[in-house]
Amino acid sequence: MENVRLSEDGTKVVILDQTQLPGTEVYLDLENAEDMYEAIRRLQVRGAPAIGIFAGYAIYCLARKHSDCDYQTFYRKFMEYKEYLNSSRPTAVNLSWALKRMQKVVEEQKNRPVEEIVCFLKEESMAIQEEDIQMCRAISEYGLRLVKDGDGILTHCNAGPLATSRYGTALGPILLGTERGMQFHVYADETRPLLQGARLTSYELQKAGVDVTLICDNMASMVMKNGWVQACFVGCDRVAANGDVANKIGTSGVAILANYYGIPFYVLGPTSTIDLSCRTGEEIQIELRDPEEIKKMFYERPMAPEEVRCYNPSFDVTDHSLIAGIVTEYGICRAPYEKSLKDVMEKRAKGERCV
Amino acid sequence: MENVRLSEDGTKVVILDQTQLPGTEVYLDLENAEDMYEAIRRLQVRGAPAIGIFAGYAIYCLARKHSDCDYQTFYRKFMEYKEYLNSSRPTAVNLSWALKRMQKVVEEQKNRPVEEIVCFLKEESMAIQEEDIQMCRAISEYGLRLVKDGDGILTHCNAGPLATSRYGTALGPILLGTERGMQFHVYADETRPLLQGARLTSYELQKAGVDVTLICDNMASMVMKNGWVQACFVGCDRVAANGDVANKIGTSGVAILANYYGIPFYVLGPTSTIDLSCRTGEEIQIELRDPEEIKKMFYERPMAPEEVRCYNPSFDVTDHSLIAGIVTEYGICRAPYEKSLKDVMEKRAKGERCV
Repeated sequence: MENVRLSEDGTKVVILDQTQLPGTEVYLDLENAEDMYEAIRRLQVRGAPAIGIFAGYAIYCLARKHSDCDYQTFYRKFMEYKEYLNSSRPTAVNLSWALKRMQKVVEEQKNRPVEEIVCFLKEESMAIQEEDIQMCRAISEYGLRLVKDGDGILTHCNAGPLATSRYGTALGPILLGTERGMQFHVYADETRPLLQGARLTSYELQKAGVDVTLICDNMASMVMKNGWVQACFVGCDRVAANGDVANKIGTSGVAILANYYGIPFYVLGPTSTIDLSCRTGEEIQIELRDPEEIKKMFYERPMAPEEVRCYNPSFDVTDHSLIAGIVTEYGICRAPYEKSLKDVMEKRAKGERCV
Repeated sequence: MENVRLSEDGTKVVILDQTQLPGTEVYLDLENAEDMYEAIRRLQVRGAPAIGIFAGYAIYCLARKHSDCDYQTFYRKFMEYKEYLNSSRPTAVNLSWALKRMQKVVEEQKNRPVEEIVCFLKEESMAIQEEDIQMCRAISEYGLRLVKDGDGILTHCNAGPLATSRYGTALGPILLGTERGMQFHVYADETRPLLQGARLTSYELQKAGVDVTLICDNMASMVMKNGWVQACFVGCDRVAANGDVANKIGTSGVAILANYYGIPFYVLGPTSTIDLSCRTGEEIQIELRDPEEIKKMFYERPMAPEEVRCYNPSFDVTDHSLIAGIVTEYGICRAPYEKSLKDVMEKRAKGERCV
């Protein structure tokens, strides 16, 4: 069962509500723009690639309601929806990437009847998901070359199937290796404030029969010092041209610790998260979220003084100098990243097939 | 109002229940050994110096019940209580330090009537607290020399008045400086799993009118990268002869980050936490606590799969090479710590007065 899919009649996006995991598996049918916007903002759907897949289906469902309009009206409506959905979260590049890709369809097919354009949109949205599945598979294959049977792997946040389609990115090599009979020992950072590691990563890995140990974020240093970690695997939300990586808050700390203890730190993500127009991490806009996430969310009683100020950035930027490799569906990029990232982007532009 | 004190009639230890902060201020009267043991184990009283103060009062209250016994019986009872209380938490050296100090009184006064020994015990327990107040004051004065008005200071866990007597250790310079009209910007790590930073540090600092911002532990890297932190101040539970420091889990990670960003990392604690018999951090026993603290405590619904394995060490060891200074009541120790720690211990042994 996919976490994000089109309903059978093709009018709604169906998602597994990630805010209710691991306690309850609830699927939501989303039909109108406000609910779709909120689903992204409230992290009912999350993970850069999954947001991209969701955005494709979402804008298709919204656009099809206007298939009896003339092109001008249709285009105006489409662009309104696009801007609206695009404003739900600022950091993940996949959101705007998927929406732009859908927009391109509308513009390239403008001489066709609107009804036909809508059919093309449906095809494009399904292609985004299909390509994501292939992309995750390719990343998993490449990532698997970086570890060996019996290794300890530390991961932060959630970059598994829930965040993508199948396999996932950071968890992909682990799940693929497990399918092939390999045994890994995974340490999952719980990932405060929203606990994607505790709620999602440990849930996904346990379900797949992987040996997983949940730790609080501040225990990573000790786990590394104990000699239990041979590699770190994390996902990414945006990769700048110089290899700086924006990912879930805390990622840069894990990278610094790994560096200190001499453990290779790998970033795994599709080329759709690479943003060559962004020169360095300093240009990446970091989303600040509601302080209540730190003070109250998930708690039955307030765990901090009500009035205390909180700083709640959703992401941080990991300096490229701390990264041993960026694993994409077109291969593993190594420093200098200016060159290696450009190379994989060229492969993609040429339409080369990944693995 | 002290957080730990003897009741007016001298029969009970009265503590502010730290597990109920910041929501509710509840004082508990503890009379029997089991409740005292549980108060330490459940962290109703916590912080290495506060545990020492508590242990002094606790064993006095327990011993006085046997003041009509002969010395042999009294001594046997005393030692039973001592071993029992001492087993409640293994890492903090102040617990055994205070209990040994009380034991010494019993042994040195063995030729006096038991009733008189009990009076000496009362005096000794009050002296432990009185000395702690002076000690915190001296540490605060020394620590204040390390920062200047307007500085940003990051702290981990809670080493304020709640963890000690007045002022505290890591928070001492901040509170003392604030009294003198200085302004600091404090970043308090929430400190998972039990959130002493969110619940206690931000509560204490806010009450004292200090500018405090609460962050999740994994945000420390970003706050440092932003240039907001000029110094890190943390407490300690045990300091080995080579300067390795055991403190709340996550401390070593903060030290590694500070080191990476070029920010001085200071440890503040009384000489009673220095354990010269322990050569390096490797000899320090690290307490492992209940996984439920990670998975459930404070949550209204389980935030991780029920069966998932957790690793929950209560402390970690920070390598001495990462520490810019260890601030004691006899002055600031700098590397090489073998020598500087020995020097302050000699000052203490000579009975020199601190500041």
